[in-house]
Amino acid sequence: MSFLDHIARCNNADLSQFEPWYVGATRAGFLHRDFLPMIAVRPDLFSHRNGGWYLDPSLDTPAKRTAAMREFVLGLRERGLFGRSWRDELYKVAPHFNDPTLLEMERAAVPWFGVRAYGPHMTGYVRKDDGLHIWVPRRSYDKPTFPGELDNTVAGGQPAHIGIFDNLIKECAEEASIPRALAEQAKAVGFIAYWSQSGRQLKPDVMTCFDLELPQDFVPRAHDGEVHAFELWPVQRVYETVRDTNQFKYNCNLVLIDFFVRHGLLRADDRYFFAIVEGLHRTQPPGA
Amino acid sequence: MSFLDHIARCNNADLSQFEPWYVGATRAGFLHRDFLPMIAVRPDLFSHRNGGWYLDPSLDTPAKRTAAMREFVLGLRERGLFGRSWRDELYKVAPHFNDPTLLEMERAAVPWFGVRAYGPHMTGYVRKDDGLHIWVPRRSYDKPTFPGELDNTVAGGQPAHIGIFDNLIKECAEEASIPRALAEQAKAVGFIAYWSQSGRQLKPDVMTCFDLELPQDFVPRAHDGEVHAFELWPVQRVYETVRDTNQFKYNCNLVLIDFFVRHGLLRADDRYFFAIVEGLHRTQPPGA
Repeated sequence: MSFLDHIARCNNADLSQFEPWYVGATRAGFLHRDFLPMIAVRPDLFSHRNGGWYLDPSLDTPAKRTAAMREFVLGLRERGLFGRSWRDELYKVAPHFNDPTLLEMERAAVPWFGVRAYGPHMTGYVRKDDGLHIWVPRRSYDKPTFPGELDNTVAGGQPAHIGIFDNLIKECAEEASIPRALAEQAKAVGFIAYWSQSGRQLKPDVMTCFDLELPQDFVPRAHDGEVHAFELWPVQRVYETVRDTNQFKYNCNLVLIDFFVRHGLLRADDRYFFAIVEGLHRTQPPGA
Repeated sequence: MSFLDHIARCNNADLSQFEPWYVGATRAGFLHRDFLPMIAVRPDLFSHRNGGWYLDPSLDTPAKRTAAMREFVLGLRERGLFGRSWRDELYKVAPHFNDPTLLEMERAAVPWFGVRAYGPHMTGYVRKDDGLHIWVPRRSYDKPTFPGELDNTVAGGQPAHIGIFDNLIKECAEEASIPRALAEQAKAVGFIAYWSQSGRQLKPDVMTCFDLELPQDFVPRAHDGEVHAFELWPVQRVYETVRDTNQFKYNCNLVLIDFFVRHGLLRADDRYFFAIVEGLHRTQPPGA
């Protein structure tokens, strides 16, 4: 592995396998060709023209669109599409999270509709005499997704009805027992964006990166069972583990590479400096 | 002004006014339609097909291409194209600075050929009890370009035969009398990229951003006459000056906005957080 390999691994989507869908003139997401038969049976909900799918324009408010999509997605659930991944948690559909809502959609359905998901990913670090250290959690071995892999200090998906910063504060408490007053010192320092495909599912996701400098005597504790254990690693060990292995969950590598860049661990004259920094922010579809 | 206005101002290029030119299969730059008559008179050097211009393929080494381009550009100089902007300084032509050289080209000619230029831009800051402060230089009133405007602490163009970091060390000494041992603590923390057009000239440039934390008792001094004076400003004053005015040289605003992002001065829930961070890294042509 190398930093560029992690970026490529997070950007494995082949958009030629997908068709876009729209709410009015706004692209809301992408549908895999092999998923289209389940869409095409509902021409009242999705009409097809010029290689794109258009949500019924008579659904002229976010509430109406959310209700119609909920009924449709519940039908897909009954047919077993989402397996055990159903969450009963609404995600916001919008070009960017801070844009007006087009509609809301069950979290499990989001990658099937190629809708951009958001989430805060925080690097909790400690400044010591011998340099930076990062608190590294290992995901619970019971988690349905990526069990036992290494993770960012605190990370979570972004539900519809909470701000990104407030969501981070909540995740800090739940995942790492970081008290509110401390978590509120976290700083939004950028984002990573990538186009990840898994079979018929597409994740054109944007994760907001936060840094939180933690006191030397603070020890994060797993609280909600999502984390197996935390370890405090010298930044160089994190750097080498990201560079040389796949031990971290795929998108967490990008958050850490962004941390390495911002904290000056890469050199401007590195052959791949530009390609790495550029590769962390893929907001446009591959090939666009 | 706002942060997004500065990004838009740096990305004012209309690529429909340009045609690309190539060295082999690699796009080297862009030529303005109204500059093409000066190119078309040399079909031995540039051949036109499929809306693009191709440098004579018999120039099969960087040295041969550099020599042929130098002869051509000297002819343009004799016809007065470059006015007083001639520098006698070679820039590297390459998709990224750390890529292999396609050829080298006189600095004054670079924007006429729409070639990407590089350069280090460093923010020198001081950590005080009351927060960060930034050393802000005002450009000399005698400079031919952007006289009297505010600038990044140290910034310079990137000549061909020196690394980006070594170039920064040199500029630190020349522009701000920062001794080598101190300048070597500067950290490459990212880049900004934009597509700026001025008449027939195009600057699809990439500037490497550096941070340097300076001791509280260090005072930069103008050395080579390029800087009128340095002032130490609280970061909030810099933030407001960037946000509300055009006092900084156009591209220096983007370097400072990147600094504000990385140091956590923007909020994740700001309506324009994503658009701002995304807008700092425009490596692809507008409309691409």
